[in-house]
Amino acid sequence: MTEVNIERIRRDIETICSFNATPGRGYTRFSFSKEDSLAREYLLSECSKLGLEITVDGVGNIRARLEGVDSQAPSVMTGSHIDTVYQGGMFDGLLGTVGALEAIRTIVEKGLKTRHPVELVVFSEEEGSNFSTPLAGSKAMVGRYSVEDLKRLKNASGVSMYEAAKEAGYEPDELPGQVLKPEEVKAMLELHIEQSVVLDSERLPVGIVEAIAAIQTWEIDVSGVANHAGATPMRLRNDPMAAASKVIAAVRDLARATSSGTTVGTVGRIHCEPNVTNVIPGRVRFSLDARDVDTASLEDFVEAFRRELEKQSRLHGVESEIRFLGGSEAVFLPWEITEIIETEARGRGIACRRMNSGAVHDACLLATITKVGMIFVPSV
Amino acid sequence: MTEVNIERIRRDIETICSFNATPGRGYTRFSFSKEDSLAREYLLSECSKLGLEITVDGVGNIRARLEGVDSQAPSVMTGSHIDTVYQGGMFDGLLGTVGALEAIRTIVEKGLKTRHPVELVVFSEEEGSNFSTPLAGSKAMVGRYSVEDLKRLKNASGVSMYEAAKEAGYEPDELPGQVLKPEEVKAMLELHIEQSVVLDSERLPVGIVEAIAAIQTWEIDVSGVANHAGATPMRLRNDPMAAASKVIAAVRDLARATSSGTTVGTVGRIHCEPNVTNVIPGRVRFSLDARDVDTASLEDFVEAFRRELEKQSRLHGVESEIRFLGGSEAVFLPWEITEIIETEARGRGIACRRMNSGAVHDACLLATITKVGMIFVPSV
Repeated sequence: MTEVNIERIRRDIETICSFNATPGRGYTRFSFSKEDSLAREYLLSECSKLGLEITVDGVGNIRARLEGVDSQAPSVMTGSHIDTVYQGGMFDGLLGTVGALEAIRTIVEKGLKTRHPVELVVFSEEEGSNFSTPLAGSKAMVGRYSVEDLKRLKNASGVSMYEAAKEAGYEPDELPGQVLKPEEVKAMLELHIEQSVVLDSERLPVGIVEAIAAIQTWEIDVSGVANHAGATPMRLRNDPMAAASKVIAAVRDLARATSSGTTVGTVGRIHCEPNVTNVIPGRVRFSLDARDVDTASLEDFVEAFRRELEKQSRLHGVESEIRFLGGSEAVFLPWEITEIIETEARGRGIACRRMNSGAVHDACLLATITKVGMIFVPSV
Repeated sequence: MTEVNIERIRRDIETICSFNATPGRGYTRFSFSKEDSLAREYLLSECSKLGLEITVDGVGNIRARLEGVDSQAPSVMTGSHIDTVYQGGMFDGLLGTVGALEAIRTIVEKGLKTRHPVELVVFSEEEGSNFSTPLAGSKAMVGRYSVEDLKRLKNASGVSMYEAAKEAGYEPDELPGQVLKPEEVKAMLELHIEQSVVLDSERLPVGIVEAIAAIQTWEIDVSGVANHAGATPMRLRNDPMAAASKVIAAVRDLARATSSGTTVGTVGRIHCEPNVTNVIPGRVRFSLDARDVDTASLEDFVEAFRRELEKQSRLHGVESEIRFLGGSEAVFLPWEITEIIETEARGRGIACRRMNSGAVHDACLLATITKVGMIFVPSV
C-alpha cells in the first residue's frame, strides 16, 4: 500500500509556519505579505525539485503540474491555501496544501503513473484577512472576479488587491486570459481541518464532506429610548437591550427547531449605545450568522427569527430593522467523489463519517466548474 | 404671594449655557474647565451684586451666604451643581443652581427677612465626567474625601483632582479645615430635573422626593469556547452569548417580580470577544445596574439574578463570574421637609406627587449631616 512520508509533511508545516508575522501569538501570514512570499518561495522550490510545471496567475494562485500518461487529459487538482487569519492556527489551509504536495512527491518518488495530470493548487487570499472578502483567489481563478473587482477590493491601508498583486510581482491584468476552464480539470480534491469539534468529539480521524452549508449573514438594529437607569421605572422603558436579549436568547431554540436538524444560528457581534453602565441603551446592533445545507430549513429559521424580532420589538415598545449583509448558496459535492474517498478510507481501515461543512472553502468555487471532493480531519 | 422672576432664571441659564465646549452638540462643561471657570465668574458676580458673603473651598465648592436675622443660627442651604456630562442637557444641575440664586435674589429684592442665613451652594464635580467618580465635590464638602483621595482621583489625561483644583486656583490642602459641620447647617434643599419620564408621563410639574434608591453596580463575565459559527453544531456549543442573553432577558421580569414594585435593573454595557460575525464568542462581559429604595427587594432581585446566571451557565456549559463594582445605600429624606414642600405646593395650587429618586444627587451626601429635601421637575 502506498504511504506518504509524515516526516516530510511535518517539515513542510514547520518551515512554512516559521514565516509568521506574530511569533508566539498564533500564526499570521496574510496574502501578499513578506511571510506569504517566503512560504511561496519554499513551496515553489519543492515543486521545482519534483520537476512540476509551475504557473502563477495574476493574483498569485499557484498551479504546479505533474504530467499524466495522457497529456491531453484534464487535470486532477488538489490543494488549498496558505494564508491565515490574524493569529490563526497552524494547520487550517496549510495542511491541505502540504498534504497535496506530499501526495505528488510520493507519486513521483514511487514512480507511479497516472492517466490524468495531477496539479497542486495553492489559492491566494482565502481567508479575506487582507481584503475582507473570503475566497478572493479562487473567485478570480474561476472567473467570478474581474480586474475591476480586484481594483475595488481594498485592504485596511487602502491598497487594492490589484495593487497588492502587482506589488507582489503578479500581473493582474493578465487574469482574464488565465481563468480556469471546465475542460482543463477533471476533479478537485481539498483536504482541510474541520474547524470545529464534531470529529474530535466522535474520535474520528476523517470526515467526508457531502455538502457545504448555505450562509446568510444579517445585521439587526434595535432602537429604543436611552434613559437614566435609576430614574426610569421598568414599566416606562423602551429598552432595546431587553428586546434584543430576548431575540438573541431565542436563537438556540429556533435553530434546533427546524426540520433539518442541521441549522446553526450564531450571534457573534454586538454593539450597544451609549454602552454605559447607568444608562438604558438607546440602540443595540447585533449580527446573525445562519447556516444550513438544507435551504428550506435555513429559510424557516430566518423567518422564525424575524417573527421573534417583530414580537419582542412590539412587546418592548422599540423599533427594529434587519438587513441582509451577504451570503452564499449551499454546495452539494458529487457522490462519485465521496464514494471514492469512502471506499479508499475503509479499504485502509480508517474510521470515517460523512458530514456537512458549515464553513466555506475554495472548493465551493471549484465546484462551479468541476467535480469536487473534500476530506476533513479533526481540528486540534 | 412672593414670586420669582422667570426671565432672570432664563437669562442665567442662557448665559451659563453659552459656556459650552461642544456648541451644537449638547452642553459640555466639565469641572475645572475654562467653561466651568466662566460660568463661576458669572455666578460669583451675581452673588456679589446681592451682597452675599462668598467662600470657595479647596475643590471649588461655592457657598454664598445671605445673613439672617439671627446671625448665630445655622444656615439653610440650597443649590446644586453646574458641571455636565459630555454633551449633556441644558438643565440638569444648572436649574437647581440658578433656581436657588433666583430665590435668594427675590428675598433680597423684596426685603424679606429670614431668621436663618440662606446659602447658595454650588457643588464641584457632581457628574464624575472628569474624575470618573460622581459626587466628588459634595463628598469633599462633608469630609468623605481626604486630600489623599483627591490626589488618587485621576482624569483621562492622568491629572489628579488635587492638581486640577490647584491649577484652577483653589487650595486643596486647606480642605480638612473647611469640612462642613452639622452645627453650621439647619437644612439643605435641592431642586433638580427628574432625569426620566415619570412626571412627564403623569403631566405633573413637581415631584417631592421621599427617598433616594440604593444602588448596586455589578460586572458579569460569561466565558465559553470560541468556535467557528458554521462548523459547530448547536448541541456542541458552549456559547457565552446564548447564556448571557438568557440572563439579560430575565432582568425585566426579575425586577418586576420583587415585592417593593420599585426595583429597577438595567444592562447598559456589553462587550463580546472576539466580536466577529462568524465566530461563536469566547467571552461576553456585561453590567448590571440594580436600584431600589427598598433594600430587601434590591437584595432579592440581585439574588434572583445570580440564580438565573448560575442556571443559564449550567444549561449552556459556560463559566460565569459576577463582581461587585460599587454602590450606595438608600437615603430617606425627613418628613418635616417633604411636608413643608408639599404644603407650600398645594397652597400655591401646584399639582405634585411624592416619589423616589433612582439617581443619586449631592443631596445624598448632605443628608449625612443635615435634613435634606429634594424637589423634582419634569425632564424636557
